[in-house]
Amino acid sequence: MAQKTAPDSNRRSERSRRAIYDAALALVGEIGYPKTTIEGIAARAGVGKQTIYRWWSSKAEVLMEAFIDLGVQAAEAAGAGDWAEADGIPDTGDIEADLKAVLRATVDELLDPRYDAPARALAAEGVANPAFGAEFVGRLLMPALELYVRRLRAAQDAGQIRADVDPYIARDLFSAPLAQRWLQGTGPLDHAYADALVEYALYGLSPR
Amino acid sequence: MAQKTAPDSNRRSERSRRAIYDAALALVGEIGYPKTTIEGIAARAGVGKQTIYRWWSSKAEVLMEAFIDLGVQAAEAAGAGDWAEADGIPDTGDIEADLKAVLRATVDELLDPRYDAPARALAAEGVANPAFGAEFVGRLLMPALELYVRRLRAAQDAGQIRADVDPYIARDLFSAPLAQRWLQGTGPLDHAYADALVEYALYGLSPR
Repeated sequence: MAQKTAPDSNRRSERSRRAIYDAALALVGEIGYPKTTIEGIAARAGVGKQTIYRWWSSKAEVLMEAFIDLGVQAAEAAGAGDWAEADGIPDTGDIEADLKAVLRATVDELLDPRYDAPARALAAEGVANPAFGAEFVGRLLMPALELYVRRLRAAQDAGQIRADVDPYIARDLFSAPLAQRWLQGTGPLDHAYADALVEYALYGLSPR
Repeated sequence: MAQKTAPDSNRRSERSRRAIYDAALALVGEIGYPKTTIEGIAARAGVGKQTIYRWWSSKAEVLMEAFIDLGVQAAEAAGAGDWAEADGIPDTGDIEADLKAVLRATVDELLDPRYDAPARALAAEGVANPAFGAEFVGRLLMPALELYVRRLRAAQDAGQIRADVDPYIARDLFSAPLAQRWLQGTGPLDHAYADALVEYALYGLSPR
């Protein structure tokens, strides 16, 4: 959002904002989302709760911004080539290798406690609260899914995916199974699973 | 649970139980899960709330039993051949046709308002509350997924699915995309989508 304030004030705002993000993520990891409150976040961040309400309307909104920021920080730490950045999934010319790399990285992220607690809380809030769910899906999930669509289209151009495949459907064969095992615990979530998904989807379950 | 009561008492219990199920499903559909309470269910069912607490410990437990009962009622109404019953997914000898029939029926069920509101509430409660989630997944989701595993194994025996495919992974290519589109609204959920999922998974995305 555009802020018409002096540079010093902007720096202070930025420090408060980062402290609020850190406090929200820490509390959700330590005491869980249901017990996390705006008051608790404010106390831990060392700001007044009015500072939080000036920027956000609910703890779910705070946590979503904090989670998006966590992804941006991770991408910056990993360098500009990180696939989670707007650059998209890497294109080495080998769709099988590139999809396996992305799915393995996604598995690692889903199993990382720093991501797991807030991501699960946001998913739960999104399922329970349709308005927040639409915002969560639109701001976090759809952009990630769009990266698959772009990489699949490039593979179609390279003749590695059939031209008649709808990339918006094909994309779901990779993302949805990971999400289901992570959210609902329907089976092991590891690199072997990621690899098998890619092989099954690319080459099919029926004999060639 | 075994009830050591006279037949007359059993019939009254059965009537109360059915009234409680109907009340729980109706309230969740009308006012939503968050506003539905044990007190509200009891009032609508015409029973004391102690009657409910004698059998269940929370509104989530009541709703899960009611939802399981709804599935049993629907299966009985549809006759013994209904795939949702323990009989499993039909085996006509054509895995593509059988999977398409099941996925289309699942799409219809997910879009049916009688199922949508309670199923969404149970999914949300399961994501937010890990202990309930494990029970929900174990009692409702895993048995449904096991039907896919059994049908895929039969297709392996018939040579329609490769022998080296793990049916517990293959199963996820069908169930998880439907669940993601339904829960998170990431794209249209219709029969054309169901058909495409089956074709992509069976024959692969890459050129044959």
